[in-house]
Amino acid sequence: MSEPYRQHWTHPGPFETESRATIESPVTAYETWGRHENGNALLLTTGLSPSAHATSHGPEDEPGWWEAMVGPGKAIDTERWFVVCANVLGGCYGSTGPASINPNTGERYRLDFPIITLRDIASLQHSLLEHLGVDRLRAVVGSSMGGMVALEYATMFPDTVERLIAISASGMTHPYAIALRRVQRRAVMLDPAWRGGDYYDHGQPEAGLSLAREIGTISYRSDLEWTRRFGRSWRDGKLFSFDGRFDIESYLQHQGQKYPQSYDANSYLYLSRAMDLHDLSRRRGSLTEAVSRITAAALIIGVETDVLIPPFEIEELAEAFVDAERPADVQMIDVDTGHDSFLLHPEMFGPPIRAHLGE
Amino acid sequence: MSEPYRQHWTHPGPFETESRATIESPVTAYETWGRHENGNALLLTTGLSPSAHATSHGPEDEPGWWEAMVGPGKAIDTERWFVVCANVLGGCYGSTGPASINPNTGERYRLDFPIITLRDIASLQHSLLEHLGVDRLRAVVGSSMGGMVALEYATMFPDTVERLIAISASGMTHPYAIALRRVQRRAVMLDPAWRGGDYYDHGQPEAGLSLAREIGTISYRSDLEWTRRFGRSWRDGKLFSFDGRFDIESYLQHQGQKYPQSYDANSYLYLSRAMDLHDLSRRRGSLTEAVSRITAAALIIGVETDVLIPPFEIEELAEAFVDAERPADVQMIDVDTGHDSFLLHPEMFGPPIRAHLGE
Repeated sequence: MSEPYRQHWTHPGPFETESRATIESPVTAYETWGRHENGNALLLTTGLSPSAHATSHGPEDEPGWWEAMVGPGKAIDTERWFVVCANVLGGCYGSTGPASINPNTGERYRLDFPIITLRDIASLQHSLLEHLGVDRLRAVVGSSMGGMVALEYATMFPDTVERLIAISASGMTHPYAIALRRVQRRAVMLDPAWRGGDYYDHGQPEAGLSLAREIGTISYRSDLEWTRRFGRSWRDGKLFSFDGRFDIESYLQHQGQKYPQSYDANSYLYLSRAMDLHDLSRRRGSLTEAVSRITAAALIIGVETDVLIPPFEIEELAEAFVDAERPADVQMIDVDTGHDSFLLHPEMFGPPIRAHLGE
Repeated sequence: MSEPYRQHWTHPGPFETESRATIESPVTAYETWGRHENGNALLLTTGLSPSAHATSHGPEDEPGWWEAMVGPGKAIDTERWFVVCANVLGGCYGSTGPASINPNTGERYRLDFPIITLRDIASLQHSLLEHLGVDRLRAVVGSSMGGMVALEYATMFPDTVERLIAISASGMTHPYAIALRRVQRRAVMLDPAWRGGDYYDHGQPEAGLSLAREIGTISYRSDLEWTRRFGRSWRDGKLFSFDGRFDIESYLQHQGQKYPQSYDANSYLYLSRAMDLHDLSRRRGSLTEAVSRITAAALIIGVETDVLIPPFEIEELAEAFVDAERPADVQMIDVDTGHDSFLLHPEMFGPPIRAHLGE
């Protein structure tokens, strides 16, 4: 996929991570939409897999990962807002990650890349915005991992953020999500083609990364959706076989097989771990104390059928806002498509997002 | 583990499976408790992993997998009932399975073992009971896969079963459970040590089978339980590491690592697939038509937090009983330990089981 609108910014000199490691002059790939005018900047933070290409830049351009939500006249209106979306640190769409060449050694980082956190991602994106001349954000908006980064951003840089929209994101990662991600990482590492992270001369660990993506897909959707969509139908007559494919199996296989073509296995491991480490309360006392730093007006959106960020985690975050005397607007979406609903139902997520961004 | 009370019965001649394959003279390992008197026999059907050793036979014996539920004076009272529990066809605790020698070839079956279904398992256990002189069951009782087998048994042999207790079991397998089991099978098969099922001279595919068990464990418990038990605590100071273990990771690792010591990888694959194929309605019209064959008084127990057999599947089964004009006693247990609750909370499951078995 060509990325004609992708721009790159190089952080000047070493970037220090929360873990006290340094990354030399990391590059951030980003795209922007709209025109920067006073106070109209919006930072869109991404989930694990998306690139900076959130939406197309015109009819000739390829669709982005949130095409239905971002664009002229859409809920995140690029005629009104100057939208910035960056590929995260540790990613593989033009930003520095484990597949990048370490300028200090001339070799790829591989597993020498330091463990990064969502605070590192937020911090580097803050520096990018400074470079772009954005000293104040109308809003930071993110879903899934992007929602966690948005929460961190609003906690770390409260004076620069007016509004916060965190979708399908928790205040801290709970053990069920860690468990689901652990087995995904183990699937990658079980593939001999992973070679301890040193696979770049041989090709991706496709079987392991595909399996990891299949497991991830299970956590992104719901039992009710799949019962409705797939039921027990299968593709061929060989029911009594390991190969006779139920439709759900074909669907998962398809989701898994296409993933290694677009995503780097080591980036997957690092960002997966960064989400495990997500915890707004880390070195800030409690979740409530962390949230009390946030001054942005907050919109929290959760999904009733989300198994990765289940309703009780949305409630926990909402209660922290209440306890911090910064009540958030909390909206629970009742739909059967689980964690990924923000990608699938712009008609449900668009109106509250548009309303919260205001005029 | 010694099994001094294990007995073996060999089916005379070829056993024909639902898939129209034959298994030559399959062996069934079983144990019994109590004394067979007129009408007091109870068949206890097992889940995927348990052996026939449901409970100890005396103070010197090793505990069984449902020790708290089965025994003298317990909910399934072995002073009152003649309890029979068999290791399933396809298993690896003394019954014929893929690791067994095929008498026709002198070689292990490996993947030449036919695809089996829960109907095959029920059918063979019915023959075992005939061999034992049991022509009528007070009850068939099972949990998880055992609950599915119990439902099949009561559907296939209605004239021989007075009462049915199916715990955490559905009338047919839905796609979310198929998805969860597919990725477990793929984990086993991804391990090069699996060798296409031909690993017996080299040792189990430990890494793959362990990973499969870790994924299974995620589906057997719940997010609420793990948040309560583990939270975000971790074992050592290395938070910023792939090796720094959250407690939930150590727990999963332990569950995974011990599994290959006790369970055969190929048996795991076959029984996993048998559960995917579970569908009471297969060749019986609808679920309601299938259930209408059942004459046993039925107790259906589900768990609110079960992600493998979620409440809507219990409701579906209960509705089939209502539509078939055979209303079942349906009890939903409100506890946070998910699918495995029947193993963990005898105080919740014991009373309704005892009451349903009657005097």
